[in-house]
Amino acid sequence: MTLKIGVIGTGAIGRDHIRRITSNLSGGRITAVTDVNEAAANAVVEQYGLDAVVYPDDQSLLAEGDIDAVLVTSWGPAHEQSVLAAIEAGKYVFCEKPLATTAEGCRRIMDAEIKHGKRLVQVGFMRRYDSGYVQLKQAIDEHVIGEPLMIRCAHRNPESGPNYTSDMAITDTLIHEIDVLHWLLGDDYKSVQVSYPRKTRHALSHMRDPQVVLLETNGGVLITAEIFVNCRYGYDIQCEVIGEDGIVKLPEPSSISLRKEAMFGTRILMDWKDRFIEAYDREIQDFIDSVGRGELQGPTAWDGYIAAVTADACVKAQESGQREEIELDEKPALYEGQAVGQA
Amino acid sequence: MTLKIGVIGTGAIGRDHIRRITSNLSGGRITAVTDVNEAAANAVVEQYGLDAVVYPDDQSLLAEGDIDAVLVTSWGPAHEQSVLAAIEAGKYVFCEKPLATTAEGCRRIMDAEIKHGKRLVQVGFMRRYDSGYVQLKQAIDEHVIGEPLMIRCAHRNPESGPNYTSDMAITDTLIHEIDVLHWLLGDDYKSVQVSYPRKTRHALSHMRDPQVVLLETNGGVLITAEIFVNCRYGYDIQCEVIGEDGIVKLPEPSSISLRKEAMFGTRILMDWKDRFIEAYDREIQDFIDSVGRGELQGPTAWDGYIAAVTADACVKAQESGQREEIELDEKPALYEGQAVGQA
Amino acid sequence: MTLKIGVIGTGAIGRDHIRRITSNLSGGRITAVTDVNEAAANAVVEQYGLDAVVYPDDQSLLAEGDIDAVLVTSWGPAHEQSVLAAIEAGKYVFCEKPLATTAEGCRRIMDAEIKHGKRLVQVGFMRRYDSGYVQLKQAIDEHVIGEPLMIRCAHRNPESGPNYTSDMAITDTLIHEIDVLHWLLGDDYKSVQVSYPRKTRHALSHMRDPQVVLLETNGGVLITAEIFVNCRYGYDIQCEVIGEDGIVKLPEPSSISLRKEAMFGTRILMDWKDRFIEAYDREIQDFIDSVGRGELQGPTAWDGYIAAVTADACVKAQESGQREEIELDEKPALYEGQAVGQA
Amino acid sequence: MTLKIGVIGTGAIGRDHIRRITSNLSGGRITAVTDVNEAAANAVVEQYGLDAVVYPDDQSLLAEGDIDAVLVTSWGPAHEQSVLAAIEAGKYVFCEKPLATTAEGCRRIMDAEIKHGKRLVQVGFMRRYDSGYVQLKQAIDEHVIGEPLMIRCAHRNPESGPNYTSDMAITDTLIHEIDVLHWLLGDDYKSVQVSYPRKTRHALSHMRDPQVVLLETNGGVLITAEIFVNCRYGYDIQCEVIGEDGIVKLPEPSSISLRKEAMFGTRILMDWKDRFIEAYDREIQDFIDSVGRGELQGPTAWDGYIAAVTADACVKAQESGQREEIELDEKPALYEGQAVGQA
Ligand SMILES: [Mg+2]
Ligand SMILES: [Mg+2]
Ligand SMILES: [Mg+2]
Ligand SMILES: [Mg+2]
Repeated sequence: MTLKIGVIGTGAIGRDHIRRITSNLSGGRITAVTDVNEAAANAVVEQYGLDAVVYPDDQSLLAEGDIDAVLVTSWGPAHEQSVLAAIEAGKYVFCEKPLATTAEGCRRIMDAEIKHGKRLVQVGFMRRYDSGYVQLKQAIDEHVIGEPLMIRCAHRNPESGPNYTSDMAITDTLIHEIDVLHWLLGDDYKSVQVSYPRKTRHALSHMRDPQVVLLETNGGVLITAEIFVNCRYGYDIQCEVIGEDGIVKLPEPSSISLRKEAMFGTRILMDWKDRFIEAYDREIQDFIDSVGRGELQGPTAWDGYIAAVTADACVKAQESGQREEIELDEKPALYEGQAVGQA
Repeated sequence: MTLKIGVIGTGAIGRDHIRRITSNLSGGRITAVTDVNEAAANAVVEQYGLDAVVYPDDQSLLAEGDIDAVLVTSWGPAHEQSVLAAIEAGKYVFCEKPLATTAEGCRRIMDAEIKHGKRLVQVGFMRRYDSGYVQLKQAIDEHVIGEPLMIRCAHRNPESGPNYTSDMAITDTLIHEIDVLHWLLGDDYKSVQVSYPRKTRHALSHMRDPQVVLLETNGGVLITAEIFVNCRYGYDIQCEVIGEDGIVKLPEPSSISLRKEAMFGTRILMDWKDRFIEAYDREIQDFIDSVGRGELQGPTAWDGYIAAVTADACVKAQESGQREEIELDEKPALYEGQAVGQA
Repeated sequence: MTLKIGVIGTGAIGRDHIRRITSNLSGGRITAVTDVNEAAANAVVEQYGLDAVVYPDDQSLLAEGDIDAVLVTSWGPAHEQSVLAAIEAGKYVFCEKPLATTAEGCRRIMDAEIKHGKRLVQVGFMRRYDSGYVQLKQAIDEHVIGEPLMIRCAHRNPESGPNYTSDMAITDTLIHEIDVLHWLLGDDYKSVQVSYPRKTRHALSHMRDPQVVLLETNGGVLITAEIFVNCRYGYDIQCEVIGEDGIVKLPEPSSISLRKEAMFGTRILMDWKDRFIEAYDREIQDFIDSVGRGELQGPTAWDGYIAAVTADACVKAQESGQREEIELDEKPALYEGQAVGQA
Repeated sequence: MTLKIGVIGTGAIGRDHIRRITSNLSGGRITAVTDVNEAAANAVVEQYGLDAVVYPDDQSLLAEGDIDAVLVTSWGPAHEQSVLAAIEAGKYVFCEKPLATTAEGCRRIMDAEIKHGKRLVQVGFMRRYDSGYVQLKQAIDEHVIGEPLMIRCAHRNPESGPNYTSDMAITDTLIHEIDVLHWLLGDDYKSVQVSYPRKTRHALSHMRDPQVVLLETNGGVLITAEIFVNCRYGYDIQCEVIGEDGIVKLPEPSSISLRKEAMFGTRILMDWKDRFIEAYDREIQDFIDSVGRGELQGPTAWDGYIAAVTADACVKAQESGQREEIELDEKPALYEGQAVGQA
């Protein structure tokens, strides 16, 4: 059984998912696409030799497309409407982050899904599918290090573009740590505080970089998260969980080592797209397989909501310089107990 | 276009390839299977829910099956006949190692392929698809370390089974190094000598373990290859290329690190099946894609022939204790210049 | 010329310095000792076969001893009086940390030294003599990483004794980071805040463990310092300096590696005394050599004062839960420009 | 008690030992020196401010010097005569390698020492005092890896000088492995074979470089030793012992790590003098302490003899291209059972 998939948004990430479904993964086929730029949608169909219909918008794609599921890979502000429409149409939907740009938007999506009575939404937090994070999760769950007490992590990019602003350090960058750490710990956030170290000379004048975010969870775990988007030397994701009995740490990406010119070294990636390439494959394969089984197990709308609420508090803390509280609604019954996507 | 694939031999490796084609990879579908044990073939069809016909033997599968290509995953002594039959039928064929159990058998396959006029055969040397070896190859080809002078490698297994004999250290174990190093260097072998260190107490009485093989290439590169199949501690593949300007080394498999009980460590794999799992995926995906394009690029019958001739000389050197020469036929024009499979 | 050295305090650290001067180092000889427990002092003379006179107290040792210099290795509250007496006697003095238990005490020592007109005091901050920290300092000073922006460090002990209290996490433990980081950066501290992660079950009930200290320097460098004195797995000192152009990190102590039982690992020290053993040797050798040249270059009374003021603010921050300011007097001219001991 | 030491030979290594005895170590004092170049000897006395008499030759130094022991740090061909003269004079003698340039010369020294009835000679094999090798020895002796089966080692220099010849790869370079591995294993050598990989373009025309030496011990351990004296990238000593239950490996020298410009790396030493600097200190301190106790424990004349016999066979194997036997005399009773210097 091949899953028929519609794609809403054929920008870079949309095209990348089309490529992997078409060339790398098993069990999926692109049958419908749409983009605000219809020429772009047509070009993608041609580029990948798709047997797919191009629709003028998400509404018509959902109403008329020969599809079992959709990927929402448009720009962030459009996500909420497309996801709500997909739920309305009873289609499974994989939505890239953010699920919605506001906590209220995420709330509306949860309400629609709850009303529908079954999970239809998977959110694109791919790190949960990364082999290193999966090993960390397993070690924590097997109590290899006892109870986790602290996490030290860093999210570094060589360079941020001209449109990158200080709050995007939260909403575009830290958002991945917000999700993956809450999943690792099976715990949610209680408060946040942001500190600004000395600014690097490599950052543009309008922004703060680096930033250090202190997140506290309900269980008392203290997370020190560094965001540094002009670190120059590479794309580098660090994560170390310090427990009562030991410490586990995310591996460096696999690289040959070189002895040359008085140095012993391994390469550091420069491009973020190379870092989680296998996690993206597994994420989408899992979506296809889960839809095939009729039961999603990836990150939920509730996870998208947690990310939104937490990110809002982080941005508030960026501005206030104070510790800010993070308050979540009660967790709806629909979101209890899933395997991969849920604490 | 989905490639229709027949599988000849539904033992462990056959089932594993069926699983990956069915669940992980893109563009292939199992339409025909056969096994000397027909009940096993039927069981596989059921287990994976295949829409495939079970044939009584390779001949009937090739004659009547709705197939574009076959995988030969039977036991070694049966490979040659199936591959020859596939060529005769004009089908693309992926054959697990060994291509044939004798150099003459490989020669016969090459002759059939040359007569057919086009490459139809890919041999299952999956290490060429491993990310670490690919990085090594790239570094060598980019002259990062100047001309290679020496290679130090090791092939270690925790334990060998009761049927494992000393010559299998060559034909089952070192065979992978024989292929991948000749590919890495773009060079063939000139001579070989085997030495026996003190024997481990963990080896059964009928066999020598470990063994050290010294291979010299035509270009003068000296390879020191350790084979140690009862090393206890893990499945461990080491490879280091020492060049005029530096040294490159294969990475350890990616693993989280742990600080606990006065030790800082990472896990070592125990099961060989975990080591090259992604290389197997890429190998078969490449076969599917290459057949789709009508042009194979993986390891060739010539590579299978080189492995057979070199392994024969190694076994002779095991017995003689002397340096033995390795003499290859001239390379047929059909095997010049391919990308992945050929030096 | 052999330096004649008196030792005030023959407890563990005093005996250790006597041992190294007697057996490992060049140019020093113990000629006088005293301890509040005179029997202990006599036992030490016998144990090491010293040709040394035992005095009833520091005053008489300083007045009558045949000495060029003294080591103050008594318990902390006694340091100030002995150091002041040594300055009064015009003797060089190496004082273990703390220089004095209060900032005022350190101030008095500086005043006495300034009045004397020349540096006589070296404070026992041995990490500045550790090869790893020296390499970090050199890399920073050579602008290998551009301007430092952040430091992440950790000070972990397997276990704290029953008398260890939460404030000792600052005054006994973090004190070493306080000194060595201000030296590394050539910068002093502006403010501090302390956070308490979830407490480990391995800590005694009266104390907080671990603790996370955020220190900000005048230059804007943000230091995240973890103190974890019941971490179980080892004595582990981590320090990573994050700069505009790259990151430098303290090495792990040198250890053979082991592949065994599915793990690849190196040993972690359990005993803090093994970690800086060579740094202690170099520290005392430097004191001996510096006194021989008549010009001290190690950590100064001003460094002792900075440590005291900073530690006071850290303890205040432990109690208040707020960011506390750190305010230093103006730096006296006597303490400008030394090489090893001074930023 | 300060040991009075005479130094025979004030070239680079002689001056270096004078420096360490004078500035770093405890318990020794240089009271007499001689050199074939008397002006050089006088210059050394002045440079280090020694209170030492300059003698015209080793005979007069030994006859008239106020000395307890001598260091023989002249050029190799002069060692035998000086050591024999020291034994004749009943003085302890530390002799840099080689003990003598021939096995017969070593034999004569052993005979003289045996006639004297007590060990007087320590040979300068400093690697036994290196912390990494000491850890390896301890792990082997504690059966951490079971019985050793193989050793893989490498001795690499960035560049060899114009006077370096192929046989010096054995007599000057491999000689250190010959000693330290026989000590590690508590085993002697049975046979040797030398292979020549492709020659690096960086080696001068008159020499072979790299070389691979296969040594077999009486206990059956197979040692693969690479000598590569124009490897360009650094001074690099590798040693890995492969046992029945696991593998132990010498650590890399401790170095800070750096993340910069897409590389994660540590420094590799370029200068051999930096690699074993602490081992040299411990070696000479042990000689001083052992003489003080009246009982040497470092490498013996027998060790010097083993190195000479083994090196002779290696040079013969370089020339013959064949496996050459290594035959030792029976071990004299005098050399049984010492701690550091003896297997
Ligand atoms: Mg995603
Ligand atoms: Mg294969
Ligand atoms: Mg100290
Ligand atoms: Mg030496």
